[in-house]
Formats: sequence, structure tokens, C-alpha cells
Amino acid sequence: MREVGIGIAGFGVVGGGVLSILRKHAGDIEARLGARIVVRRIALRDPEKGRPLDVDRALLTTRLEDLVEDPEIAVVVELIGGVDQAFDLVRSALERGKHVVTANKALLAARGEEIFRLAREKGVDVYYEAAVCGGVPIIRTLREALASDRINALHGIVNGTTNFILTAMAERGEPIETALAEAQRLGYAEADPTLDVSGGDAAQKLCVLAQLAFGARIRPQDVLTEGIMSLKPEDFRWAREFGYALKLLAVARRTSSNGGPDQLEARVHPAFIPAGSLLAGVRGAMNAVVLQSEALGPSMLYGQGAGAMPTGSAVVSDIIDLTRNILAGSPGRVPLPPAKPLVGLRPHDEVRCAYYLHFSVQDAPGVLARIASQLAAHKISIAAVQQREQNDQGKPVPLVIVTHVAREADLRAAIALIDRDPTTLAPTRLIRIESA
Amino acid sequence: MREVGIGIAGFGVVGGGVLSILRKHAGDIEARLGARIVVRRIALRDPEKGRPLDVDRALLTTRLEDLVEDPEIAVVVELIGGVDQAFDLVRSALERGKHVVTANKALLAARGEEIFRLAREKGVDVYYEAAVCGGVPIIRTLREALASDRINALHGIVNGTTNFILTAMAERGEPIETALAEAQRLGYAEADPTLDVSGGDAAQKLCVLAQLAFGARIRPQDVLTEGIMSLKPEDFRWAREFGYALKLLAVARRTSSNGGPDQLEARVHPAFIPAGSLLAGVRGAMNAVVLQSEALGPSMLYGQGAGAMPTGSAVVSDIIDLTRNILAGSPGRVPLPPAKPLVGLRPHDEVRCAYYLHFSVQDAPGVLARIASQLAAHKISIAAVQQREQNDQGKPVPLVIVTHVAREADLRAAIALIDRDPTTLAPTRLIRIESA
Repeated sequence: MREVGIGIAGFGVVGGGVLSILRKHAGDIEARLGARIVVRRIALRDPEKGRPLDVDRALLTTRLEDLVEDPEIAVVVELIGGVDQAFDLVRSALERGKHVVTANKALLAARGEEIFRLAREKGVDVYYEAAVCGGVPIIRTLREALASDRINALHGIVNGTTNFILTAMAERGEPIETALAEAQRLGYAEADPTLDVSGGDAAQKLCVLAQLAFGARIRPQDVLTEGIMSLKPEDFRWAREFGYALKLLAVARRTSSNGGPDQLEARVHPAFIPAGSLLAGVRGAMNAVVLQSEALGPSMLYGQGAGAMPTGSAVVSDIIDLTRNILAGSPGRVPLPPAKPLVGLRPHDEVRCAYYLHFSVQDAPGVLARIASQLAAHKISIAAVQQREQNDQGKPVPLVIVTHVAREADLRAAIALIDRDPTTLAPTRLIRIESA
Repeated sequence: MREVGIGIAGFGVVGGGVLSILRKHAGDIEARLGARIVVRRIALRDPEKGRPLDVDRALLTTRLEDLVEDPEIAVVVELIGGVDQAFDLVRSALERGKHVVTANKALLAARGEEIFRLAREKGVDVYYEAAVCGGVPIIRTLREALASDRINALHGIVNGTTNFILTAMAERGEPIETALAEAQRLGYAEADPTLDVSGGDAAQKLCVLAQLAFGARIRPQDVLTEGIMSLKPEDFRWAREFGYALKLLAVARRTSSNGGPDQLEARVHPAFIPAGSLLAGVRGAMNAVVLQSEALGPSMLYGQGAGAMPTGSAVVSDIIDLTRNILAGSPGRVPLPPAKPLVGLRPHDEVRCAYYLHFSVQDAPGVLARIASQLAAHKISIAAVQQREQNDQGKPVPLVIVTHVAREADLRAAIALIDRDPTTLAPTRLIRIESA
């Protein structure tokens, strides 16, 4: 039976999952492939540290070079994370004509362009299903299933940590500190949760998805990114009142600008979405991506976005796919993201959304009239207004306005003026409204 | 630029969708493939009939043989439907070494085994993404993305017509005749809706899915199949009362039987599912499939299951994939369903479910006690009971019992005895309860 040798860099949670799936399903995989996948080396930082499962110590090495230099290794599996060291490993693997599987969204978001260019030059493959939404086959669907279609919008819950926190806040009315602490206790959030709660992780994933779905070339810093730490329990109550759920969404949307070339909105932020929508039903640490495409219309993929086995299964599916290409002599079968960007980024000022606006104002005559006229002066039209009764004299009154679709820059300008008025007692908070 | 010739058999709704996608996205597809897909012949029954779009009349033929005999056609796209003629076409195409794309679930359910065997012998590919759930990439996901995983259960809403009808009944309290008539008026149901409302269409799709997901070899007549025509508006009210939604589900579930080999439950029937589940949120004519697999856990794919463009996009994605295989010289890259069945069918008597039972009984002392003791005698344990108040003396009282998980044969035996009793005024109706 033919053998295809692989080298695995990184032996943490995902590495353990990959090895255990390769072992457990070895028979099935061999039967399907007509070939054997053989792990030739595993590179890890500290060979003395406890491992998630037993392996032959002769396979272990602390030198990443050992993977790249081994002529029997055809596929390098990068699971070390981070950008710089991972990039060096991937680059030297590609330069030696090895195929690469990576689960590293940060790497692809920051240096995907160089990696894909090198892979094209060398005629080798880069597979990265596990980089976004763990085991959910979104990368494969974008690369292959929708090759015949044109995608116009993508809305995703792509960060399980924040969705877990927001689900707890929505269902139990908890403040974010409590929900975050619980997520940390249960292992859904890191000790330092910044990358997740800031939206940064979701922005990296959005960049990777937008490369494939739209041929866009954007970096995380180009994405309009707002995290979840400023959300309050009352935002969830208001969401319910207006018929919405509140989720952290990654959004990419193709827009046309007065007959000019298409542009792409790229943003990550908390969003009100219709309570009856499928995305609203995505609870806990689960992930989902909704695509709007021309021929297929709306479609959704849903599943576990993290964890040893879900992510490991995506990595192993990539290894199997690469092995098929190697056996068939057909690397480069499925194209990488396009070499030239097909669509530019839409300036954030030009984003158009409906908004939920939460004002903290004095309970005084004329306050609503002032706010309404400021909004009108900026061409922002009001869809709904609610003001809660307030018994404590002198305390700010919460006033909530839902707008129709407006231009982000106009809205920001109106809010800036409103917030400068002495009857506004705290900065106005906004949450965008998405129909997907 | 290299060209790959295709022949399309059948020029109805889907054929029109395929041609219009191939035209509209020709530039994109050529850029991605580095090759041109050229439609060389279109076979149709009546060349004088109005067509969904204009084509060069020189391409048209009424002879299916013209597609098979044309040496410039590498891929035959079968869109004529039905079993016998379609089988003859597919067989002669495969025998001549041509690849096949088909959207024909009936063909694959009835004669998939022969087709796949011939394709294996000839070293050519059969692609059939459009045969199940239109544009939803469930076939591709089962063939490729989950190649590393082991699927334990599949629950699908795979028939848009019945889901449209059940959604109308649930949301508007309509009797089934009204909902069906509306579905016919809107084009969601055929003039003769039997294949859809009987569950027969869903059973065909389940067979195709079970081949891939479990390596099962089952035919539609092997599937425990119940349609939707006996459902009443009150079933939806009871569903809501117990926290469920009511859907027509296709279910395949791997079960182990006392250390013996795994068996597969295969069934299509109306089912109560938790109201908060994602499948419960699948409305109208949409389709969705939930998979439970070992590594990935639960996952779902959702989208439009029918229509010219969704189905057409799946066919075109298959054509693109086949073209990639042809260009790379790698046919047979992704394996067909296994040649030997990997799992046998579980006898329907051994199916285990929880049940909703709807009794029509006399309002007389001892009736509940009698039913409860019949159930107990058959090892069926009761989870909930509700009896509605009844003002009209003499009319049957609706009594509803929700059971814990029980064996189908035990339940049937108990019901048969209960229905024989003179205090039972109408046959007891049952709806299975699924947790997915």
C-alpha cells in the first residue's frame, strides 16, 4: 500500500485531536484512500511535557527544520499558532515543494498573500479548513461548492467564546463580567480573553473568509471592529422588546457604488438580528455562517468552531484531501484565493445600516425633539422610539431609537452633536441592526 | 485555452438554470479553471416547445444517443428525471468512459449500486450534488469534508413541499387541505403531490444520503415511511403545548445491537422536535440536514432544496469539479459510496423512539387507567398526559400521552389492543419524537 508521510508541528490540543483521529479512523481512511497516511515527525517545544496521548518518542523533535528537511514528509501540518515562527515554517515547507495544512487564521490573515503566492509558484497546495469555524466545512464550501456561484454577503458567528458569553447574557440576564468569568471557568475563554472579546479573532477569520468568498485582500486592521465588552444586560432586554437577538457578527457584504467597481464592507461588531432568524438560534459556543449568493440564495453552515476533535477532524479532512491530490498527481486542483484582489474595501464611513441608539438624557422638555431634529438634519430617519418611565428624579432617562438604514458617517456626526449637548448625560451607545 | 465539452440531457427548469449559470459566470469559471466549459449538445424531447432561454438551435437534439456518441463530450449531465430512460443514458455514457453529473435522486435510490459499480470499473466519476437538497452542499460534505469522521445520525428536512405545508399549518393553524392547495397555487407542490406528501421523495433522498454517510445500501421501499396527510391542526397545537415543532423528518441513525454489528434505522415520518432546535427554525420550502458525527459533533447545512438556480448551481459546481479532475488527470479522486454495504438495516420493529399518542376515547371512568395499564404491560413508560375538557357529552375526548423511549413493536402491540376496546372511538394516532 502506498504511503504518504506527514509531519506535524505543534502537539497541543488540536495536534492531539489530529493524531487521535488519524489513529482511530486509520482503517476507514486507508480503505477510502487506498493509501496509508504515516506520521513521520512531530515537532514540539518541550518533549518532556505531558502529552494528550502517547506517541513513539522517536517521532518527537524540538526542531521544526526536521519536518521540512525530511524527504519522506510530503505534507507539513502547522499547528504551532502565532504568526512569525509559523510563517517561517510554512515558507520553508512550501519552498521545498511540500504541501501545507494549517489551522492558523492569524497567519493567513496577516500573511496569506505571500503564502498563497509562494504555493502558486511552487505548484503545491495550502489547505486550511480548520482556520475558520473549526470543523464546519466553510472553507471547502467556498472553494468548491460555490465555485459556480457569486456570493453577495456573508454573516457569521465565528467566535464561540463571545457567542457563549452573549448567550448567557441573553438567557440569564447576566452582566458581561459574570458571563465572561463563567466562560473562563468552563474553558470557553482564555485567561486573557482580549483577542476574543475585542472582536479581533473574528476579524482575522473574516479576512480569511473574504479572501475566498469575494477575492478581497483585507487585513484585520482594515475591518471595522467593535467588541462586546460595552454591552449591557438592558441591551438584551431592548433587543427582545424590538424582536431581535443580540450577537457578535462578522459581516462582509458586496456593495456597488454608483456604477463604480464593487466594494466590500468588512466589519465585526455586536448586531441586532431578527429573533426568528437561524443565526439567532445559534447558542453557546457554536459557530455558523450564512451566505447570500446569487444562484443558491441564502444558505447556512453550522457546527462546533473549536475543540480538539472538531478542529482535528477539519485538519484530518484536509490531510486526506491533500493525500488524494498527491496520489492522483493533481496538486493545485482547487485554486487558492485569486492572486489579484477582485474587490476593494468600502470605507467605513460609507457603511449603511439600521441602528439601535441608546441615549441617556435628562428628563426635560424638548429633549426628544432636539435628538429627533439632529437625526433628521443628518438624513437619519426614525423607525421606532421608546422611552422608559423614570421614577428617580434627576437620574438619566433611557431613550431608545431604532433608525432606518443610514450612512455611518452621518450617524456618527449626529451622535457627536447630540453627545455634546448638556442634556445628554452619558455617551450614546449604538448597535447595528442586520437583517440576515 | 483548454476546452471541456459537456452534453446536457433535459432542458426544463434545472437545465435552464444550468445553462444560465454557465453563461453568466463563464468569465469567473474560466478564470478559476484555466479552461472553458463548452456545451456541445442539449438533448430534449420537443425542440419546438418554448424554452427557458435561447440557445443555438444547432446544439439541440432529440436523440440522447447524440450526447453519448459525441467524442467531444466528456461529461454527460442527466437532467431528464425518472428511472429507466435515465439509467440507460447514464449506463451508456459510463460505458463509453464519459463522466456523469446527475440531479436524479430516484435513479440513484433505485439503481445507484449498478451505476457506481460501472463507474468504478470504467474509472470515471459520478457527481450528484443536486440530487439531494438542491444547492445545499450535503453530498460534497459527506464525500469529502467528513471523510475523517464517523457519522452516527442524520436528521433532515429534505422535502421543501412538505415543509412549506407544515409551516403554514403551524403558523396559521390551517388544515392540510388548505395548506396543500396554497402550496400548489404558489408552485411549491405539483398537481399530483403524492410523491412529496407521502414521504416517498424524502425516502429516496434518505437512501442517497445513507449510501454516503453510512455505507448503507437501502432502497426507498426499505425505509419506514409515513406521510403528512393524516396530520391535524390540533397536532400542531399539542406540539406547541409540549414545547415541540412538527416537521417531516428523514432520519438515519446508527445503532449497535448487543455487541452485534451496527445497524441503521432508516425512516421518514412526521416528528416532534424541540421548539428551540435549529431544525425547528427551518421554515417554508427550505431544506436542512443535521449530522451527528464523532469528532465534529452536531453540524447543520441549510439552504434552498429546489428551484432552477439553487439546483442549477449544484449541477454547475459538479461540472466544475469534474472538469478539474479531467484537467488534472485525476478521475475517481473522491471515492464513490463503498462497493460493499458497511451496515445493515435495522428492522422497523426494533426502532426506539419516544412517542406522542393521540387517543379518542369515551369520557368514562377507568378509560385512562385502562390505557395506562396497557402501555405499562408493554413496557411503555409515560412522560406526560393531558386531557382536554370536553363540554359536548358523548363526543370523544382527546387524550394525549407522551411516552419515554419505547420499542416500536411494543408500542404497536399496545395500540392495537387499545384500539380494539369499545371505549376507544377512533384509531389512535402516533407521532414520533426526535431530540435532534
